[in-house]
Order: sequence, then structure tokens, then C-alpha cells
Amino acid sequence: MGACIQNRIKQNSLDHSLTRDFYTSPDIYLLDLERYWGRNWLFAGHVSQIPNVGDFFLFDFGNESVIISRDEDDTISAYLNVCRHRGSRICLESHGNKRTFTCPYHAWTYNLKGDLIWAGHMPESFKSSNYSLKSVNLMNFQGLVFICLADNPPSIAPTLEKLAPLTRPFALEQLKIAHSASYPVAANWKLALENYMECYHCAPSHKEYSKSHSLKDPDEMEALIPSLNIRSEAAGLLIGEINSTGPTSTDIGTDCYYRRYPLFSGYDTGSNNGQPLAPLLGSLASYDGGASDLQIGSLNNFLIYSDHVIAYRFIPTGLQTSDIQTFWLVRGDAEEGKDYVLDDLTWLWHVTTLDDERIIRHNQQGVNSFHYHPGPLSSMEFGVSEFHHGYLTMLAQE
Amino acid sequence: MGACIQNRIKQNSLDHSLTRDFYTSPDIYLLDLERYWGRNWLFAGHVSQIPNVGDFFLFDFGNESVIISRDEDDTISAYLNVCRHRGSRICLESHGNKRTFTCPYHAWTYNLKGDLIWAGHMPESFKSSNYSLKSVNLMNFQGLVFICLADNPPSIAPTLEKLAPLTRPFALEQLKIAHSASYPVAANWKLALENYMECYHCAPSHKEYSKSHSLKDPDEMEALIPSLNIRSEAAGLLIGEINSTGPTSTDIGTDCYYRRYPLFSGYDTGSNNGQPLAPLLGSLASYDGGASDLQIGSLNNFLIYSDHVIAYRFIPTGLQTSDIQTFWLVRGDAEEGKDYVLDDLTWLWHVTTLDDERIIRHNQQGVNSFHYHPGPLSSMEFGVSEFHHGYLTMLAQE
Amino acid sequence: MGACIQNRIKQNSLDHSLTRDFYTSPDIYLLDLERYWGRNWLFAGHVSQIPNVGDFFLFDFGNESVIISRDEDDTISAYLNVCRHRGSRICLESHGNKRTFTCPYHAWTYNLKGDLIWAGHMPESFKSSNYSLKSVNLMNFQGLVFICLADNPPSIAPTLEKLAPLTRPFALEQLKIAHSASYPVAANWKLALENYMECYHCAPSHKEYSKSHSLKDPDEMEALIPSLNIRSEAAGLLIGEINSTGPTSTDIGTDCYYRRYPLFSGYDTGSNNGQPLAPLLGSLASYDGGASDLQIGSLNNFLIYSDHVIAYRFIPTGLQTSDIQTFWLVRGDAEEGKDYVLDDLTWLWHVTTLDDERIIRHNQQGVNSFHYHPGPLSSMEFGVSEFHHGYLTMLAQE
Repeated sequence: MGACIQNRIKQNSLDHSLTRDFYTSPDIYLLDLERYWGRNWLFAGHVSQIPNVGDFFLFDFGNESVIISRDEDDTISAYLNVCRHRGSRICLESHGNKRTFTCPYHAWTYNLKGDLIWAGHMPESFKSSNYSLKSVNLMNFQGLVFICLADNPPSIAPTLEKLAPLTRPFALEQLKIAHSASYPVAANWKLALENYMECYHCAPSHKEYSKSHSLKDPDEMEALIPSLNIRSEAAGLLIGEINSTGPTSTDIGTDCYYRRYPLFSGYDTGSNNGQPLAPLLGSLASYDGGASDLQIGSLNNFLIYSDHVIAYRFIPTGLQTSDIQTFWLVRGDAEEGKDYVLDDLTWLWHVTTLDDERIIRHNQQGVNSFHYHPGPLSSMEFGVSEFHHGYLTMLAQE
Repeated sequence: MGACIQNRIKQNSLDHSLTRDFYTSPDIYLLDLERYWGRNWLFAGHVSQIPNVGDFFLFDFGNESVIISRDEDDTISAYLNVCRHRGSRICLESHGNKRTFTCPYHAWTYNLKGDLIWAGHMPESFKSSNYSLKSVNLMNFQGLVFICLADNPPSIAPTLEKLAPLTRPFALEQLKIAHSASYPVAANWKLALENYMECYHCAPSHKEYSKSHSLKDPDEMEALIPSLNIRSEAAGLLIGEINSTGPTSTDIGTDCYYRRYPLFSGYDTGSNNGQPLAPLLGSLASYDGGASDLQIGSLNNFLIYSDHVIAYRFIPTGLQTSDIQTFWLVRGDAEEGKDYVLDDLTWLWHVTTLDDERIIRHNQQGVNSFHYHPGPLSSMEFGVSEFHHGYLTMLAQE
Repeated sequence: MGACIQNRIKQNSLDHSLTRDFYTSPDIYLLDLERYWGRNWLFAGHVSQIPNVGDFFLFDFGNESVIISRDEDDTISAYLNVCRHRGSRICLESHGNKRTFTCPYHAWTYNLKGDLIWAGHMPESFKSSNYSLKSVNLMNFQGLVFICLADNPPSIAPTLEKLAPLTRPFALEQLKIAHSASYPVAANWKLALENYMECYHCAPSHKEYSKSHSLKDPDEMEALIPSLNIRSEAAGLLIGEINSTGPTSTDIGTDCYYRRYPLFSGYDTGSNNGQPLAPLLGSLASYDGGASDLQIGSLNNFLIYSDHVIAYRFIPTGLQTSDIQTFWLVRGDAEEGKDYVLDDLTWLWHVTTLDDERIIRHNQQGVNSFHYHPGPLSSMEFGVSEFHHGYLTMLAQE
């Protein structure tokens, strides 16, 4: 595999789509899980999901399941959901509150720090301390919780320090998840992610989005930015961008992108009628009519309006099956029915994701042809190219 | 794979069924698609499906999808249904009428000749002329449309010249598709095709067919041929056979077989009661009580009665899943309900194909046994042996 | 594969669970079928299923189907359910009575001894005697029917001679199958078998079983054995054990285990209320309140109460799918409704198997993690270790 994968990586050119086997080969899918999903920071959830000692939730992807929980010291930690005895899942509930995790098979029992505190009938030489649950790296950025399975995760902290002041006015740590949804798609996860990484398809494919979001037309967008900046400053936002992605990132897996772009006139937020959807986030004084594209690490994408946030992830569930998982977040103190209406809040990115599911599925069908060859990328697909840069580099690393 | 497949091919003997891995191995299935389905002429449909400029239909098999359309010059052409940008399917409808094909992803647009006529935001160096849809070879034999994905398709034209006078009286180009049906079967496509290539199983397995068709008993059939020939000549048919198959074909992939055989007394056509089913084809003056077995290329089979035609193809959809696709064709000017009754027309080959689905499925189950070994073919299974000859030869070619 | 599998086997240690690829690799699954299921004695059924000449039943597992039938000489034999012509299944009914087996494809016909007695249109050189159905080894131990696909099955007869007097009082040959059930589980067959091979999980996972069966607590069980032995002798049983398993078995595949263990006070048999479920087996004079664990060969497990017997097998149906197949047997002359109530008879091992299905499935999910590593076995999991010994040894043999 070692030599082979290097050759297959070299067939690729960064200004084209990937070669066929990266979307069709079981070998490469296993490498994707091991070398890319196993090494990158992954968005697991939000601190509001586990406010109290003993609260936990699971984050499942590919073959893995991770427990994120809050222990008696009020520390949030992550552990692999795999018993150290014979490998059973130890936690079967998607979320809840526990003081210990007892394996449903032979009752090996772990505390909230992952220590093994009970195992019956073991030989005298057996040392419980050697059989703690595998610890998983965890990072909390303004309430957004990320995990990484690798022993040495990408050093993203310095970049996030630069990001922090730009996102601080939104008070992300005070959000709550108003709704989440999963959209299964019959395609390799990379086709789903690539779809998110460019707005070249927005005008042809997303009529609802394109009605209100200028990103679909770079020239039009640029013209609207000066007036957006004035409104953003008035609302209490700092003006600034971060573009440390692909070849310009400080290190593989440390990608970070932040840019606020204008909605069209008449749109305060990503709503159908342009009207607000929920209370203003954090310390914002007013609607600026903008939306911030935020990427943290290789795989985690967020869209920040003045009154809500969307989080997107593209979870591999098989070689040609994925889940597009979407989260809608609002102020933690907002009340459903009173401060926001769920159907209105979720409308835009529900219809847009349904469109994307169809597009991505047909992309996979075409790529499966033995006669598919990588085609050239447009200037609006720089994000795809930057993803490929980091992806191919990371896959090449033993 | 190169050396390996040669050895696996050599394990086979033409007077036996194939070795187990040809029905069970994912490697060989990929070779089947690439080297056999990718190189042979395939029956795509009938000209009557696209009478007008802009009419098109899709032909899908294995991983491939092909668009067959009629352009402004009244030329019928075939193109791969894969966008040259990032590989999406460009046409999602199974048939229709269009002047351009616009990719549903990023709106790259192609004309009816497959030329790329629009692509936005591409760099200056981009030349549209390099990104036409991949052209697919197309052949029209008396209205039957065949395509071939290979750059150099089998040279079947000389053989078809000999065939032409034999089929001309049926005026195949004036047919229309009265009905089509797809029968999924849980078996490798070769088991489905082999089933069609012999009538050794007809007597045990097909009681409806065997009541009327003498092919199930070679001795009985031979005795009936002289009187058939007299009736056929009276009806306006030429008497003649073509048997250029397997080792006797002029070249691999150019197989052609034509032979008219007698129905039993009292049967004008393949109907339940022996009575006619539809208007006489082409220039026929009368019912001769015969049926013509017609094979064009390695994979395409037809059965021509005096008043209708059946087309059969055996489409791979996976290693051990296939579609038996059946078309019933009648005179283009015949009107349903008045000139033919659909249930009567389709009765025989509907019940027969249901039988075959069951037989073929059980064949796959038995072949999956590690203890299956190829068994000897009977004298009635020459067609299976001829298929194996061409198949193994083509698979051996790099 | 040869060298590779040896290395992969050597990664394993007998006091730990198996390495990940033994539960996840398609290669190893094929080896499992070929080298383990293809070489071991397998419990096919009970003689009571085929009392009369021409009676037959099928035993299906993995890719294989075997016909077990009684011929005109009153001999029970086993044949592969694969036609020697082109490999079709020849028998499609799960059980019945036939004097000949006629292949549903081309009508090749075999008698009850597996001889080919009819095949049409074969060349003169064809000798029917070369095309008998493949004979499969069969062994009848006190009415329990086992088959083995290998040419040289494990020599288990000497061990079974020692076993015979211990099981004779139950008159196993006079049983009948009162009920059978199949529990599909989304896990590799080894995880299902391992689950059966230890009672370390009984106390945590099986509250119904643990209420009545002392096996879940070795110390408690030992204390109850002397009084059980007195009751067993009074009932007419011999006191004795056979423990010829794993490293102590005389040869690979000849494992045999027999031990009677006590139920808790108040339980005559494995019933909900402790009361009898069916007439006493064979020559038993009374209920002794015991249950015998019986293992014959590597893969076949039985549990003998005073009034009924459970047979268990764990059939591979795919890499990560299995069927847990369970049989409840009672005296042949017992009448349902009068002598036993089916729902009462099947209650315990129905609820227990449903528990196991859940446990085993979650075990597979955890083992699929790239971060699963084999964990250490407890003293109560000796049966798992013994299974691994025989399994790894047999898999290593070319």
C-alpha cells in the first residue's frame, strides 16, 4: 500500500477534481478513515449539550464512537467508546447523565475520567490502571467542542488565537442547539465536502440561497463589501479575515478561514423573507446583513448569521455513503415558539441541503464511470483545491 | 492482475461451465465491465425512440450511462453521460427532448453534438473544445441501435451485410417498442446470458414455450424445417442461415447468428392460443409459423416472429446482480387495443422470463459453493460454449 | 495469503480476545469458511427429521447447502446440493420426501444414493458414474446428525465412545424437535460463538438465566455439586465429566466437553417457575435439578435438562452477519399441548438469545474501531481461549 498510494496521490493535480479511485476504491476509503479522519480535529458538539457533572453525548463517525462527558472536576473529556476487555461498545445511549460507564457485556466499569474501577474474575497479575478507556484529545474553542483521535493532533491553537477576537462578539459559548438533522447521501464523503467548499454551484443549484446570498457572484459580492463593513462595525464586529487554508495554512490540519460576506439588500439574516429569525447573538447591537463563513481545521464548517449559526459536517458511513449532519444554533436563552420558530429557522439550509444531496449523489454516479477523468476547476472552486492540498498531503504521510 | 487472469482463464475448458471465480470474484467482475462490456457492441434501443431533432434516451449498464440523441443534422449520436468538469451525470431523465444538456451541478452546457458551449469562471487558458462529452461509437442496423465504448469497436459491418437481406423483409426499422420490462435477478450476468444461449433447459423448465416452439427438441425441429421453408418462402422470406459465432466468427465481438426455426402446428406466432398477436411485419405476405433466432455481436439477442420481435439483454448491475431487460416490438403503425392486446403480446416471454429468473438465481446459489466444479456441457449447449470462447478470448486481451 | 495469514495468526495470544482483522477482514472470513467450517464436524439435525425412506432435509451454512436423506437401505447420507452439470441447486425445498432429486434447470436426475441416473443429450464419452453428487461425511451420535465437508474429518469417534455412557440415559436418539428458531445477528460468527463459550457475561446480561443457573457463579456452583451428584445418581445418571477441549483435545476438531452443573434450589429444569416443562427424558427416574453442558466438535453445543435439550449453532451468513440457530428437543412421544406447552418450553432460551443478539452486535460495533485492541480474558472465559486454540491452529493449516 505504501508505495502504491504515493503513486496514486501523484496522479492528482490541484487544479482538477480527484482521480476516480479516490471516490471509488475501498483501499483509499480505509486510508481516509485512518489517516485523515483519524488525524484531523473533528467537530463533536457544543458545550451546552453537557452543562452538568456526568452529562455526556456520543459522537460517531466511520467505525468510531467517542464519548464526550463532563467529570466531577467540571472538566470535559473524550474517551473511545470501546471496552478494554473484549471490545464491546460500553455506552449505547446517544446522550444522558452517568457517574460510571458499565460495559453491557461483562460489566467492566469505568469512571468519568475513563479509569477502570471494576473488573471481576481477573488474574492477580491484572492491573486495572493499564486498562483505562482510550483517551481522545479534546479542544474547546468558544464552546465548540472538537476531538482528535491522533496522539499528536494538528497544532491549531496559534491560528485560533487570531480567530478568537473575530468570533468573540457572537458569544458562541452561549449558544444552544435548536435543531439538528442528518441527510444520508449515496456518495463518498469527499464529494459531499467538496460540494460545501465552493459556491460555483450556488447560482445554478440553489435558487433560495442565491436570492439572498451574494457569495454566488464574486463580482457582485465585492461591490457590496464596503457598505457591509460599515454596518458590521456599527453592530460591534471587528473587520478582518483569516485565510490560512491549503498551501497557506501553517501546518496540515490547521486550516482556518473566516470571512464575512454580504447578504443582498433587504436580508437581515438567512430567512425566507429577510426578516430576523432569532434574538441577536452575543453583544451584537444590530443586524449588519452579513454572514460569516468559518472553517476550523480541515473538516469543520460554520456559517454565522447575526442571529443564528449553522454547523456542517460530512460524516463517512461507507465508501459511497455519507451523512450530511447539520446543526442550527441560537442564543442559549432563546425560547422556541417565543423567540424563534423552528420551521422558519431551519428552512433555508434544509431546502439547500436537500438540493445538495441530489447533486452529490449524481456526482458520485458519474464519477463511477470508468470513463470519468478529472476535470479542471474554475476560479470559484479555490476551496476544493485547498481541501485537496491538505487531504493529499495528509494521506501521503505514513 | 495481468498474469493472474491469464492463469485463471486457462483453467477453463470450452466444453464445461466456467470455473467458480468467474461467477464469484469481484476482480473478474471489474474485468468483465472493462474488457467485455467496455469493448463489445451493446443494444441500446430503437430509432423509433428518437424520431425528432433533440429527442434522446439513456442506456445505463454497470457503472456507465450513455446518452443517445438525434442532432440538428438528423444524425443519431451517443455520448457519455458524465460532465467533463467534476464528473456529474449531466442528464437525469431517462428520455425526452432537449436542444442542450446542462449539467445540474455547475451548469456546464453541451449541445446535441456533445460540444461544450458554456462554462463559467474558467481561466483564460481553458479551451472548451478540449472538453466535449466523450463520444461513444454508434451503429444503426435496420433501426436497431448499438453502441460501443471502445475506441476500436469490433468490425461487425461485413457480417451484417450478409445478414441484411435475411432480416429486410421484417422491416425492423419500422418497428416501435410496444412494451419493455426489467427482471432483476440475484446472479452474475453471465449466468443470465448462458441461460439464454441454450434450449437444453426449455423442456424441463418452460412448459409454455415448449408447447409451441420446436427448438426444445432438435430432432423434432429438424423434421419440421422443410415444410417451414416452403411456408417462409411463400410469406416472402429468404431461406438462409448465418452462423458466425464463437470460434467460427470472423473476429472477436463480431458474432452473428440467424436461423429460423419452426413452431409446432397450429401456432402462427408465440401466442398462448397460436393465433396472431399483431399485424404482420414489413412485407410479409402470410404467417409462416416460424421464429428467427437472431444474435448481433456477443451480447444482443432477438427473436423475430411474423408479427412481433423480442429483444433481450442481460445487464450487469453488480457482481451477483443483473437485470434481464426485455423489449416487445411491433409494427410502428400498429395501435394498442385495436391491432394488438398488450397482455397477450407479452404473455409468453413474461412467464418464461419469470421461470428463468428463478432458475438463474438457483444456479448462482449452487455455483457459490466452494465445492462447485465446472461440469460438462450437452450437445444442446453449443451456444454456451461459443459465448465462452469469445468471452475468454476478449478477457485475455490487455 | 499463505505467509500473511501465518503472521496474522501469530499476532494473537490465547489469553486475550482476537486481533481486529479476525472480526473484520473479508480475507479471513473466506479462510474461516474454507479451513474451519469446511473441515469441522457440524450439527446438521436429528434423525427424527427423516424417519422414512426418501425423507430429507437441507442444512445450509455460508456458501454451502447439504442434503441429508434416508435411502432405500435405511442409510442416512449427506450430499452436496449442487448439480454436477452447471452447478445449480438441485433441491429447493427445506425438507420433504423424494425418491429422486431432479435438477430444476436441465433435469439431471440423482437417486437417494447421489448417483446420476439421467442426463439427456450428453456425448457418448460421458460416464454418469463420474458425476454423482459430491458425497459429504456423516456421523450419527445417538440420533444427533453431524456432517463434515472435508475428505478427512476430525477423528472424533474415540472421544465420543467415552461420552456415550454419560449421555445414554437421556436417550437422545428418541428425541424430536419441538421448535427451532433463527436469530440473525449483525456480527461475525466468532463473536456469536465466543458469547456462548463463557458464562462471565451471564450475571450482568442474563437476569432470567442467572436466577436459576449456578454456572454464572463458579464458587457457588462448586458448593452445590455434591448434592447434585447424589440427586443425579438417584435419577439414573452416571457421574462423570469429559473435558477434552482446546490444547487438551486429542486432535484439532475433536473437542468434546460434558459437565453437569446444578440449578438453584427450587428449579427442576430451565423453566420460569422451576416446574417441569416436559416428560422426563429416556430412562431418568426423577428430576435431579441439573443441566449438562455438552460440546461435540468445535462448533456444536447442547444443553441437556432432565426433560428437554437445547441445541445451538452459530452459522456464518456473511463477514459481519450470522444466524444464531436454536433447537428445542423433547421426548419423541411427547405431545404438544398435553405434555408440554411450547411458549413455556422455549421461554428461557428465547429471552436469553435476544439478550445475546444485542450484546454480540454491540461487541462487533466496538471491535470495528481502528482503536480496538485485544483485551485480557478472565478466569471464567477459559472456553473462549480453548476455542481460539483450535481455531487458530486449524486456520494455520494449509
